[in-house]
Amino acid sequence: MIMSSKNFFEIYALDKNSRARMGEIITLHGKIRTPAFVPVGTGATIKSLTPEEVGNCGIDVFFVNTYHMLFRPGPAVIEKFGGLHKFTGWDKPLMTDSGGFQIFSLGERNERKNPPKEEQLIRVTDRGAYFKSFWDGKTVFLEPRDSIKTQQVLGADIMMAFDECTFYPIKKKYAKKAMERTHRWAKICLEQKRKGKKSQALYGIVQGSVFKDLRVASAKFISLLPFDGLAIGSVANSQEPRSKVFSVLDWTMPILYPTTKPIHFLGIGEVEDIFLSVERGVDSFDCVAPTRLGRMGWIFSKREGLAKKFRYDITKSQFTTDKKSPEIGCQCPTCQNFSRGYLNHLFRNRELLAYRLASLHNLYFFGSLMGKIRDSIKKGKFLKTKKEWLE
Amino acid sequence: MIMSSKNFFEIYALDKNSRARMGEIITLHGKIRTPAFVPVGTGATIKSLTPEEVGNCGIDVFFVNTYHMLFRPGPAVIEKFGGLHKFTGWDKPLMTDSGGFQIFSLGERNERKNPPKEEQLIRVTDRGAYFKSFWDGKTVFLEPRDSIKTQQVLGADIMMAFDECTFYPIKKKYAKKAMERTHRWAKICLEQKRKGKKSQALYGIVQGSVFKDLRVASAKFISLLPFDGLAIGSVANSQEPRSKVFSVLDWTMPILYPTTKPIHFLGIGEVEDIFLSVERGVDSFDCVAPTRLGRMGWIFSKREGLAKKFRYDITKSQFTTDKKSPEIGCQCPTCQNFSRGYLNHLFRNRELLAYRLASLHNLYFFGSLMGKIRDSIKKGKFLKTKKEWLE
Repeated sequence: MIMSSKNFFEIYALDKNSRARMGEIITLHGKIRTPAFVPVGTGATIKSLTPEEVGNCGIDVFFVNTYHMLFRPGPAVIEKFGGLHKFTGWDKPLMTDSGGFQIFSLGERNERKNPPKEEQLIRVTDRGAYFKSFWDGKTVFLEPRDSIKTQQVLGADIMMAFDECTFYPIKKKYAKKAMERTHRWAKICLEQKRKGKKSQALYGIVQGSVFKDLRVASAKFISLLPFDGLAIGSVANSQEPRSKVFSVLDWTMPILYPTTKPIHFLGIGEVEDIFLSVERGVDSFDCVAPTRLGRMGWIFSKREGLAKKFRYDITKSQFTTDKKSPEIGCQCPTCQNFSRGYLNHLFRNRELLAYRLASLHNLYFFGSLMGKIRDSIKKGKFLKTKKEWLE
Repeated sequence: MIMSSKNFFEIYALDKNSRARMGEIITLHGKIRTPAFVPVGTGATIKSLTPEEVGNCGIDVFFVNTYHMLFRPGPAVIEKFGGLHKFTGWDKPLMTDSGGFQIFSLGERNERKNPPKEEQLIRVTDRGAYFKSFWDGKTVFLEPRDSIKTQQVLGADIMMAFDECTFYPIKKKYAKKAMERTHRWAKICLEQKRKGKKSQALYGIVQGSVFKDLRVASAKFISLLPFDGLAIGSVANSQEPRSKVFSVLDWTMPILYPTTKPIHFLGIGEVEDIFLSVERGVDSFDCVAPTRLGRMGWIFSKREGLAKKFRYDITKSQFTTDKKSPEIGCQCPTCQNFSRGYLNHLFRNRELLAYRLASLHNLYFFGSLMGKIRDSIKKGKFLKTKKEWLE
């Protein structure tokens, strides 16, 4: 071990030519090997897959959305089961978000340029956010303390602070206001965190949209608070221009990286983005890409000559009679047992097995990509591996 | 072994107090332990499950619907893969039907009382059936020889003769006409069968609707032809009054049973029906119940006090906080790993995992029920087991 942070994060290898680092986050439910890909199990399930299958893909942790848990099935139900681990049957590490992302994305259209109004889907005050439930339209108020209380009931190993997510494009004045609220709320979240179990870690979230001075200020503020880990928020919502996404990392990582706390990049997950994030010192990222795109028929692949980089659409007619494995050489159960032609047939007939087999392959693809990245950092060959993949 | 039929069906045990018998159907792709439950994989997939999972449920064979294969993906595609076994990845025995059931059920509403007309969805002649494709509305003609040719391309271990299915209620005059066609077609099917691979067995189908004299005549006619097995058709379409279903068996089994050919009852599959069929000498039956009802949230169960016999609806609110296994003591992967509450949550949120876990449990339930039935016949305790289950 090179460095450790409060017995929570241990760093085993540092790349000489970049900020890439390899380590482990240690939780009550086991270790998360970093850099880690964190798939999203919105409704307390990685859609179509069992926990056992997810684990067999080399995935150590997944993300559950607190917003969904608030309503379906509700924290009281999860509490009766003794937390998400027992509820889902997944006994490895879990992460929950604060609920904020879904709440603020509700108000995105009106919110981003004008001050929010009463009749809109959400109204943000300095205390928290009023929003209309996605399911029944009832107005609900969520404040930072509630978010953490809920996450404490859910029992995830890693919780996220309640922040005000902003969306692009945005006026700087509003971005600053949202950032300042996020900073005030960060302290309230930490206060509530101290009342709960020590085994649950809490990550603080850096905001500031696409403005350098705000991001720098936020990174300084959040990194000085006693969070267990750090996260970078509101930048990978796919509305920002791609150039901005990594500018944000370039501005903030010089401040966050030296803390030796694990750093999570929220909402990142395409192959290229993973390499660019790891290179800049990111330890984990979450993304719906492998499962959501899988359910649409996209198969992740390292094959050359694909029109779309790193994936192809298996529902196309050219695959109807293709006997080959979805990804030649892949060791996942899908590629070991089924052909492109059969998957094409299943997708064209909307057979449930289609979504499963594609999600499984894609998750395995990301799980083994992360294994290769960790290995390359250990061997001092990260940039070589990055080049092999991206060129 | 007590008796065998052309090295295709071996009978190992006969019940002293009923016609129940235990044996094995021997195919190129392995053995089918009888009495056997045959789940239905309409589109060349048992919906939501992998072949491996199906096999682990104690299921030796499944049914693929030729009608669906005609259009999706089409026999030419299956031929390129070398048959359904290679296409689906299921290397155990497979059965295909003739395509007739789906074709004739299209014309069911008009057909059953009046002679069919040009403008209807189907038109039956002595040569075969014209019908409009479910997918694109194009008129297609299917005759007995085509049906067998298609099944030969599909490569199932057990094929079904092309018969004219009838529906209830029906005029006797039409039932007789349909039966006579079925008999003529039976010979044409056998002729085509001889031109194919010897390893593919062909079952003849007894028709005659709910009329005793017709059923007796049909059983005599079909049982004298050189089919490898016998099937009883058009009676378990759930339109016939239940009393009629087993009357048909009582009329026909005295004629079919002594042939020592395996006997299949088409479309049967609820728990009680299985016991009543096995008691009368049936060796196999196919039904969509475990998987279709599973996808609707019905969990098969031997639990006492259920409103509906042998199953309960896990989507009901009473299960929201229920930590128990779906079926206490069940060894299936669903019951070993997940609670009623979690399944309730998955169903209420239409999560894909719900359909999978319920289908898996239900198939395991039927697979192990058949294991218990075979064991009880071997031990001379079939009627005792039947009583235990049904009283």
